[in-house]
Amino acid sequence: MADSILQKKSVCVVTGPTRGLGRSIAYQLSKKLPDGSLFILLSKNKALLDEIAGLIITHRDEIRVVTSVFDQGSSDQGQFDNVFQDCLVKAGAHVNEFEQAILVNNAGTLELLELSRDLDNVNAVNVFFSTNITGCVVLTAKFLQVFSATAMKARVIINISSLAAVSPMKSWLLYCMAKSSRDMMMKVIGEEEDNIRTLNYAPGPLATDMSVIASTETKDPSLRAWFEDQVKNKTLVECDQSVEKLITVLEKNSFANGAHIDYYDEA
Amino acid sequence: MADSILQKKSVCVVTGPTRGLGRSIAYQLSKKLPDGSLFILLSKNKALLDEIAGLIITHRDEIRVVTSVFDQGSSDQGQFDNVFQDCLVKAGAHVNEFEQAILVNNAGTLELLELSRDLDNVNAVNVFFSTNITGCVVLTAKFLQVFSATAMKARVIINISSLAAVSPMKSWLLYCMAKSSRDMMMKVIGEEEDNIRTLNYAPGPLATDMSVIASTETKDPSLRAWFEDQVKNKTLVECDQSVEKLITVLEKNSFANGAHIDYYDEA
Repeated sequence: MADSILQKKSVCVVTGPTRGLGRSIAYQLSKKLPDGSLFILLSKNKALLDEIAGLIITHRDEIRVVTSVFDQGSSDQGQFDNVFQDCLVKAGAHVNEFEQAILVNNAGTLELLELSRDLDNVNAVNVFFSTNITGCVVLTAKFLQVFSATAMKARVIINISSLAAVSPMKSWLLYCMAKSSRDMMMKVIGEEEDNIRTLNYAPGPLATDMSVIASTETKDPSLRAWFEDQVKNKTLVECDQSVEKLITVLEKNSFANGAHIDYYDEA
Repeated sequence: MADSILQKKSVCVVTGPTRGLGRSIAYQLSKKLPDGSLFILLSKNKALLDEIAGLIITHRDEIRVVTSVFDQGSSDQGQFDNVFQDCLVKAGAHVNEFEQAILVNNAGTLELLELSRDLDNVNAVNVFFSTNITGCVVLTAKFLQVFSATAMKARVIINISSLAAVSPMKSWLLYCMAKSSRDMMMKVIGEEEDNIRTLNYAPGPLATDMSVIASTETKDPSLRAWFEDQVKNKTLVECDQSVEKLITVLEKNSFANGAHIDYYDEA
């Protein structure tokens, strides 16, 4: 059986680490990874970045954290080109001091929850895909360059997926398309790269701001009502609970590269 | 058993109908659909549009054809807003004279055949997804608006898919992502809309310009060599042969909405 992914001294990048699932992932992984590990936290919100960074350092002073204001939907090439090197410099760190590099592609948006026939605004659709797909592809490319197969003995990329990646959901076309294409991304990279593990983790329907959005903005009445009930009855999955399952999967480390593993799947 | 899709007097939209598979689809469907059917052909290339339109009319003078210069990767909202109405006006036609509306989402590009780690240019990746996903989503939305479930007894959307939609292919990340998300699109629309049939048809490895591109530009050596052999030995599938299979599927009309059917699947 493979070693746990969480036993290796790592540089661990998390996108969207300031709220909801991303925050829980950053915080809980920081409690699991060995001393000397470095977190690189990327988000648009500087104040919330400072908060989660402070929380991590308070609980684990053997862990380093650097943050960078980062907009995944930006078309600023320089932002993508420089983000990892800048963060390493800021941390006074070098790639070769780590046994492993981890990227958690968590950042994404849930919007334009219209029926497909109403998705007729070119600019709005372009903006959605730019944020949810293009930025994720380019950031991942840069991650693979900086933390290359020759520089690192081990790399791990975790895509935060969804049931929507594998199952069509009415009035969630763009979200379903983004998630299915990001699942495919983990499959392709899993075949292309050496020294890599890639995983699609679908965290279940979470008690986050996103579910509130889903319960109010989803155009399809039955899907909207389902989220309304879940929010009202507080039956959504807590982020920490879902991250526990993710941690179990990473510790077990027996998934096939590119696999789609759901919170509700057998451990 | 359901009636053949090709027995109904139709308005039939084909994107990318000037070359390769799209041309064969437009031409062969024009020979199958009933008198009075109207073809709306959309492409960037006016000269080639005129050529395929002329070919169709020469063989079937009971079929009407209108063409429109159309760039699926454009961000010009007016282009998308007006294309179908303009074409109907040009043809002197009205939606209610047709029993069925068909959209063949064939247009797409095969480019940036790099390993994922080299896909680091934000603008280039945005352009790819704009052409291959956004334009397809918005055009389809407009199709569903103009040829609505109340206006039309029957609608059909055929997405030209690929093995790459369901199977990862090294150095084809963007193509795999676009195709998997477009497959998902047919699943979602198939659930959202009334009076609709949606199909993903993977036409097999075709003897087209695209396979020449694949055989020269694919970065992965083994995939490139496979295409080189196919091109050299002329063992790729002819477009007309693949369209025959598609026609069989449409005539049989027994596929589940959103199904992914490959040229090599059992008929």
